Amino acid sequence: MHLRVNGDQVVVAHRGRVLIRHQADKPWLCVGRGSATYDMHKGNFTIEDSLAEKVPLSKLEAYAEGLSDEVTSVRLVASGRGGVTVCADVSLDRHGDVVVVFSPCPQDASGTSVEAWNRWWIRVPSEPGEAVFGCGEQFSHLNLRGRRFPLWVSEQGVGRNKKTYETFLADTHEGAGGDYYTTYFPQPTFVSSQKYYFHVETSGYSVFDFRDKDAHQIEIWGAPPSVRIGVDETFAGVLERLTAYMGRQPELPEWVYDGVWLGLQGGTDVVDAKLRRARNAGVQVAAVWAQDWQGKRITPFGKQLMWNWRWDRNLYPNLDKAIPEWRRQGIRFLGYINCFLAIEGDLYEEAKKKGYLARNREGHPYHVVITSFPAAMVDLTNPNAVAWLKRLIQREMIDLGLSGWMADFGEYLPTDAVLYNGRAEELHNQWPTLWARVNREAVEEYGRLGRVIFFMRAGYSHSGKYTTMVWAGDQNVDWSRDDGLPSVIPSALSLGMSGVGLHHSDIGGYTTLFHIKRSKELFMRWAEQAAFTVLMRTHEGNRPDDNWQFDGDEETLRHFARMSQVHVALKPYLQHLVRENSQRGMPVVRPIFLHYENEPYWYDVQDAYLLGRDVLVAPVLQEQVVERKIRLPQDEWIHLWSGHSYHGGEVAVAAPLGEPPVFYRASSPYKELFESVRSVVSHPKKFLGR
Amino acid sequence: MHLRVNGDQVVVAHRGRVLIRHQADKPWLCVGRGSATYDMHKGNFTIEDSLAEKVPLSKLEAYAEGLSDEVTSVRLVASGRGGVTVCADVSLDRHGDVVVVFSPCPQDASGTSVEAWNRWWIRVPSEPGEAVFGCGEQFSHLNLRGRRFPLWVSEQGVGRNKKTYETFLADTHEGAGGDYYTTYFPQPTFVSSQKYYFHVETSGYSVFDFRDKDAHQIEIWGAPPSVRIGVDETFAGVLERLTAYMGRQPELPEWVYDGVWLGLQGGTDVVDAKLRRARNAGVQVAAVWAQDWQGKRITPFGKQLMWNWRWDRNLYPNLDKAIPEWRRQGIRFLGYINCFLAIEGDLYEEAKKKGYLARNREGHPYHVVITSFPAAMVDLTNPNAVAWLKRLIQREMIDLGLSGWMADFGEYLPTDAVLYNGRAEELHNQWPTLWARVNREAVEEYGRLGRVIFFMRAGYSHSGKYTTMVWAGDQNVDWSRDDGLPSVIPSALSLGMSGVGLHHSDIGGYTTLFHIKRSKELFMRWAEQAAFTVLMRTHEGNRPDDNWQFDGDEETLRHFARMSQVHVALKPYLQHLVRENSQRGMPVVRPIFLHYENEPYWYDVQDAYLLGRDVLVAPVLQEQVVERKIRLPQDEWIHLWSGHSYHGGEVAVAAPLGEPPVFYRASSPYKELFESVRSVVSHPKKFLGR
Repeated sequence: MHLRVNGDQVVVAHRGRVLIRHQADKPWLCVGRGSATYDMHKGNFTIEDSLAEKVPLSKLEAYAEGLSDEVTSVRLVASGRGGVTVCADVSLDRHGDVVVVFSPCPQDASGTSVEAWNRWWIRVPSEPGEAVFGCGEQFSHLNLRGRRFPLWVSEQGVGRNKKTYETFLADTHEGAGGDYYTTYFPQPTFVSSQKYYFHVETSGYSVFDFRDKDAHQIEIWGAPPSVRIGVDETFAGVLERLTAYMGRQPELPEWVYDGVWLGLQGGTDVVDAKLRRARNAGVQVAAVWAQDWQGKRITPFGKQLMWNWRWDRNLYPNLDKAIPEWRRQGIRFLGYINCFLAIEGDLYEEAKKKGYLARNREGHPYHVVITSFPAAMVDLTNPNAVAWLKRLIQREMIDLGLSGWMADFGEYLPTDAVLYNGRAEELHNQWPTLWARVNREAVEEYGRLGRVIFFMRAGYSHSGKYTTMVWAGDQNVDWSRDDGLPSVIPSALSLGMSGVGLHHSDIGGYTTLFHIKRSKELFMRWAEQAAFTVLMRTHEGNRPDDNWQFDGDEETLRHFARMSQVHVALKPYLQHLVRENSQRGMPVVRPIFLHYENEPYWYDVQDAYLLGRDVLVAPVLQEQVVERKIRLPQDEWIHLWSGHSYHGGEVAVAAPLGEPPVFYRASSPYKELFESVRSVVSHPKKFLGR
Repeated sequence: MHLRVNGDQVVVAHRGRVLIRHQADKPWLCVGRGSATYDMHKGNFTIEDSLAEKVPLSKLEAYAEGLSDEVTSVRLVASGRGGVTVCADVSLDRHGDVVVVFSPCPQDASGTSVEAWNRWWIRVPSEPGEAVFGCGEQFSHLNLRGRRFPLWVSEQGVGRNKKTYETFLADTHEGAGGDYYTTYFPQPTFVSSQKYYFHVETSGYSVFDFRDKDAHQIEIWGAPPSVRIGVDETFAGVLERLTAYMGRQPELPEWVYDGVWLGLQGGTDVVDAKLRRARNAGVQVAAVWAQDWQGKRITPFGKQLMWNWRWDRNLYPNLDKAIPEWRRQGIRFLGYINCFLAIEGDLYEEAKKKGYLARNREGHPYHVVITSFPAAMVDLTNPNAVAWLKRLIQREMIDLGLSGWMADFGEYLPTDAVLYNGRAEELHNQWPTLWARVNREAVEEYGRLGRVIFFMRAGYSHSGKYTTMVWAGDQNVDWSRDDGLPSVIPSALSLGMSGVGLHHSDIGGYTTLFHIKRSKELFMRWAEQAAFTVLMRTHEGNRPDDNWQFDGDEETLRHFARMSQVHVALKPYLQHLVRENSQRGMPVVRPIFLHYENEPYWYDVQDAYLLGRDVLVAPVLQEQVVERKIRLPQDEWIHLWSGHSYHGGEVAVAAPLGEPPVFYRASSPYKELFESVRSVVSHPKKFLGR
């Protein structure tokens, strides 16, 4: 590291990047005290701070070991009015990443302990033209510069854009509209186009504000945070550093790539019949995902699940026999669980009796209203409750033959819940990580990792190392930028830039409300996009009868079969990408700038992406469009469907249904595989736009 | 005053009310430093603070003169971390009101001057069940307790309720939807049900937050504020104290009450024809108000005015002869002016040449976009510009024979404007006061006060003492609670509780946008409400052709004639009320609690009011309703139309069109006058609901 002190100015740099730039009137650090109110309505939060005090630490003294041009560690003593003093030790870890640890200071003369400061502000120097990415899974914006991002695990929202009528309706009905920053999976981490990652180790609410022209302003609530910064020469190097610290996802079971995962419901016979219909139409199927394996209920929101995590023998008779039979046909069976317990079920009674439930202030089990009914939550801070829940998963799900499940929710811990260990306000953001860990350990301790998979929508720092797969949550079944098909691309890209590289979405979206219903065209375009991700999975949506489904007509079935065949054809390449993610933290779905670093143009491209190093995907994201213009990076690109070769720059390609704009690099080692895609799939007969 | 010091606690009380309650962890005062961004779009503001420092002044020392139970003045020395110290001198003025003046303190050891603190927070102790009123003209809520009110002069907004579709549309199109607190006329003053007024002398942005259960939290931006608190035994006494300090409105010209003021447009002949039609139908007319006397333009928003403040001889040929002719018939002629100048006009050229215009940072005249066209602003901080503007009003308007005018706008001073004297950020809220003063002095210095009247929508502290009449601005032409007919009642009541007691509204509302058009029934109900205020004035709205007008059909004309007759019949009573307002600050339109102080029920009643001491008005504010239930205070009340007598409590009365629920006190000295109303008006022939 380099250290420069000049009058009241202090600069700390590492590998040529200025990481700290302090001056008295623009202090690196401020501390404060505040108390927040959190108002939760069905997973949507209104958060407000009452700030009692804010102290700018205007004076910064630096004590370094080593030469000023090559210091190995720096002690920064930051002080402000009245002798408020905080120490920050800046050092390098074994990977050469910078670690900043805040601690009490012997010099402190304020009489206020460091623990009393529960508001922290850090200025991170920024540069003109700099772009920033990450902050977890961001659905609206890939490049976060110019905007402010509160980071709090929550429902994603319905519409997510205060200028759309759908958001207005959702806000008016339930305060559920969300906004550009609301997400199931925030993370206090960003990657700068200056080629460094910046991560705050905290579990409190935080705000990453990238609007200021000369500094990123980071606000953190709770106990003293620590900060990590990893500098490298390339984005790939930065991600490798970030994931070396945060952990990486393991490789996926081999069967995962063998076709689509059909989201089906309705009982053994219904599932079997729909499965047959799909396979007869040529759909490659790897798995059936039946979320109602444990029963269902009808609510005003739609058809919902029972949430008592046992096989429903009435709805799924002979499931124990059907599962091995399907398995013999090469089809896995997947189920569903979440971190709630239905209060009508026997598991709730058992957990309640054993004291395994999160409680309210009156000491009773905390009943949280989800969409339209209340449910209780297992207290994931209680080791006995966790052990009980893991055994439940192993006994009721793995032993039954489930090869995986959706591990839903994780966003709803109320900040006033009373827990076995710890304060809910500080644990709220960690809850999805605890929930991921339960699932991971249930699988791993049973020796099934690499064979059984679970997928989650909620997440936070460190949940990436437990989860085996993320899905994008509940998109609207529409074309909207902030909550429809287009939003699944920035969500995958930003999560990848946060160190979590395995991601997919519900084909066709989920949320079916008001006038929003899934159209045939939307389903088909979404399937095309999904074919060029790691995983194709359908969801019927919350109101299946209002939505177009994969078997809506013969044309849809044919198109879906074709996309499933394309996807399966890519298996060796996808496996290679998943291995890269597992070994180096390189996400499967990547922003184009990851491999074309010197062109700022790509920082703002979020309607196209790289599937690994060699495939560029520019899906059709608009209705009634059968051609797409796209800029290609400087390279030789071959159009997947026509074989036409391009050498970068603006191109326009036909994009009828069944032929989403996809290009592969001429120099790819997988060139033959990509060429084979054209021959392995049957030619589309008749699609819209032809 | 009483002073109690107990450990770290300090209490200052006056006449039995605790005005200051300090303890270390809930300090009376905090100071801070911040810099704000103000984003203005067509008079709608987005305001955001960047807070650099906040210092709670946790220690409070008191030095008193006199005995602790009867001190005449107290010096409070408030100090916080690092020796930050502010002095506050608490004393009584000649009326016995408490004055708190903040000043630099010799004890200050911080090295930061008092002037550097531009953020101030004051805690005002509150009581359970306490209600608060005022904060200027509040359209959504009469009782402000439980809500937070930013106070900044601005457009009122279209819809003003984020849950209504109309607000959503306005927000989406122009960011113009507003919210429950947006108002043309805020004022940092409230009246508590504890019977005191609390006023902050400041011109900066402020926030009055009444949500906390044990304190009102007041945040003030800018130079050190001073505070005044007037305690009395009754609400009337409190208002008398408040208006003794703030100033009161003069009595109105005698002709004002002689009928409706017809808002007409279109030229001399059109106005004359419509006037004849009204009078032939029996409408009592006091004045014609022709806002287009100075010309007009057609914009996407509707028909708008030219804004070059001279008689338009093309549109109004022979106006100089028509005015005295109308006058002979007992009809005054009123015009229109605002604080902008059309950039197409000769007055703009003249003001520009003389340097009388507010400038932008480049030194050019600041062009502000209003609805759809830009205009310049006369610099009201320049004494020469003010003198020029006053002469303009006298020469072009009074000399022409105008008996009054709408003095429009006052909300649009951009915070980055460069002015002759002072900073725009600090003058923004004062702008309407400066604008009111120009109009007042133009009239008064010409010797026409009491004969010529002007009416304004924008206001702030101290504009009440200059303005001769307030109107409620631009309501939507609908029934909505926050921006339609119902909103004009809380607006009059809250303004009255802020010390400004003369108020009326556009009959039928103004804003005609999207699908919102004025219906016949709305016009009629609005006219009924207006008949029981100080002044009846119509406005055609911004899209006259989309709105129902007073002469829309014979039934409307008949109903309107009837209401004008009722209004004129009330003239002696209204004159008495205006005199009371002028002498004691008792508003003409009063909340019911003003005379029924011991029943908290009335604190939240904003759909009915007292017109002076003796008349209770409960207008019909909903569509298709012909009966109204209303609670009456304990008193003997006589129903105006039926003569039926009630003795308080819940009553239900028929309320067909033409007979809005109105009651008078049996013991009123004006009883005979009220009885005469029944006979002077012709009986309605056929109205809706009969």
